[in-house]
Amino acid sequence: MNALVFDGKVALVDDYPQPKLAANEALVRVLYAGICNTDLEIMRGYADFRGVLGHEFVGIVERSPDRSLEGQRVVGEINAYCGRCEACQDGRQTHCYQRTVLDIRGRDGAFAEYLSLPLNVSHRVPESIPDEAAVFTEPLAAALEITNQVHIRPTDGVVVLGAGKLGLLVAQVLGLIGCDLLVIDHHAENLSFLQRRGISTVPESPLGFQADVVVECTGNPSGFQAGQALLKARGTLVLKSTYHGFSQVDLSKVVVDEITLVGSRCGPFPAALRLLGSGFVDVGSLIDAVYPLAEGRAALTRACEKGVRKVLLKPGDA
Amino acid sequence: MNALVFDGKVALVDDYPQPKLAANEALVRVLYAGICNTDLEIMRGYADFRGVLGHEFVGIVERSPDRSLEGQRVVGEINAYCGRCEACQDGRQTHCYQRTVLDIRGRDGAFAEYLSLPLNVSHRVPESIPDEAAVFTEPLAAALEITNQVHIRPTDGVVVLGAGKLGLLVAQVLGLIGCDLLVIDHHAENLSFLQRRGISTVPESPLGFQADVVVECTGNPSGFQAGQALLKARGTLVLKSTYHGFSQVDLSKVVVDEITLVGSRCGPFPAALRLLGSGFVDVGSLIDAVYPLAEGRAALTRACEKGVRKVLLKPGDA
Repeated sequence: MNALVFDGKVALVDDYPQPKLAANEALVRVLYAGICNTDLEIMRGYADFRGVLGHEFVGIVERSPDRSLEGQRVVGEINAYCGRCEACQDGRQTHCYQRTVLDIRGRDGAFAEYLSLPLNVSHRVPESIPDEAAVFTEPLAAALEITNQVHIRPTDGVVVLGAGKLGLLVAQVLGLIGCDLLVIDHHAENLSFLQRRGISTVPESPLGFQADVVVECTGNPSGFQAGQALLKARGTLVLKSTYHGFSQVDLSKVVVDEITLVGSRCGPFPAALRLLGSGFVDVGSLIDAVYPLAEGRAALTRACEKGVRKVLLKPGDA
Repeated sequence: MNALVFDGKVALVDDYPQPKLAANEALVRVLYAGICNTDLEIMRGYADFRGVLGHEFVGIVERSPDRSLEGQRVVGEINAYCGRCEACQDGRQTHCYQRTVLDIRGRDGAFAEYLSLPLNVSHRVPESIPDEAAVFTEPLAAALEITNQVHIRPTDGVVVLGAGKLGLLVAQVLGLIGCDLLVIDHHAENLSFLQRRGISTVPESPLGFQADVVVECTGNPSGFQAGQALLKARGTLVLKSTYHGFSQVDLSKVVVDEITLVGSRCGPFPAALRLLGSGFVDVGSLIDAVYPLAEGRAALTRACEKGVRKVLLKPGDA
């Protein structure tokens, strides 16, 4: 099959072997896949991954141990878990000790014609959600993980730092809370999208700001210090960015200001599907371009450009 | 008056001016003062402080706008607050925008014969608590700030990293919760003190540990990474150490493991006095030595030695 493979560099491979299915796995034909910042970080060395890229997708089940799933449209969580380890038994399946992770750890991703998907992380997509929206389930779930972990109140002052691919989803989710929300990014186009939704935006960090909660979505190490500077004492800084390498952090300032840092990763798919079904989150406007898989390298180049929104791949297209 | 002053180096000054009192301040004659790791960090450049060192003390009120306080024994919080700024109005007085801080920011400390103390941060010491115990009120309050900020359950697995001056108090406070507590430090003497209280100890970090909560009290930058390694996914790392300089932090690991970091500083004095009164915390055994103020430089040298517990200064002694 065709697949976009990373092994130190990215190549389009036309004879990549079809996925071998484990007992609990379905074969999924990919309809759409989305390029995430993490894919771009993996290309810079993050997580030391080798294999098929891509972890945001919607597809059709072609073959499944549960035959009733065949022909169904599904999305899939990225963490394949064992169900038996202490983390799994404790309800922390996304932190399973033995997990493989699509496009990150020991599991081929979705920039291919097919992928294998464990049944226990597959979710049927309701009819009302079109393919081009369903492909946003994974990043929208990641945005919802913030409100899953942190109680953000309608009376809170909240800043989203970075209105990139993930930031635009995070800002929309937080905008639904009714909190006093400010989004900071220097890309005017992304800001006007948010402004049309009634969300306040500024291109640069204001001085002397005192937010209750700051969500760091810049995707790069400088976001931490910028986020810390916007936070009031005893505030909460939510970290969403993953990237290759270490950061210089003033931990004494964390202690003196008694701030809370919360690392936040993968989120609840059922909630994301409910919110996509409700229509309260606009994902259609977030699509920058759709490329056939054959033009995957051009799509990745496009996704690397500053201020670009979601770039989708469509393996079915020639 | 005699005072131990830091102005780039430490000197015992015998003609330091007596404190000038603001309208809301009392003059306190220092009975005992304790040397904290923060004093030692200040001598290494932390907080860029210049003036009289020391912020842990118990004393007698010599002069006060509230005459009923005169002759009373008091301890004092270190943050002198305005009561009018947004942080104060919001109940975060220890984070007052205009605060001065004893021995840290714009306020002379307690390694002197006298200090000035705002009435609204002074606390009378009950008769039942001897001077040598009352001088521990400030660090014990700092230990209690942990349980003030974080809900630590009796069913939690908890690690205290570092059994130094603060760590020995933190371990005692957490031991009262009934949680599954492990203290890690390589100083055998400090560990045997905890063992006699029924607290488990090890000299080195065990591999593969999965704590719900880790409290970092090592007082140095290496503690962060060591703490992170002992924590389970979605666990909480409480940071108590303040020191001069930046740390290298793997923030992506914070995101991937979805851990929560909580900076923790000054705590509730009334609760600390209650606990000292109850006798459930042993502070007497934590005293390493008592020096007269005149031997303050020797006392600081002693406090800098590895594994040394609390060194007290007694300004009244010749």
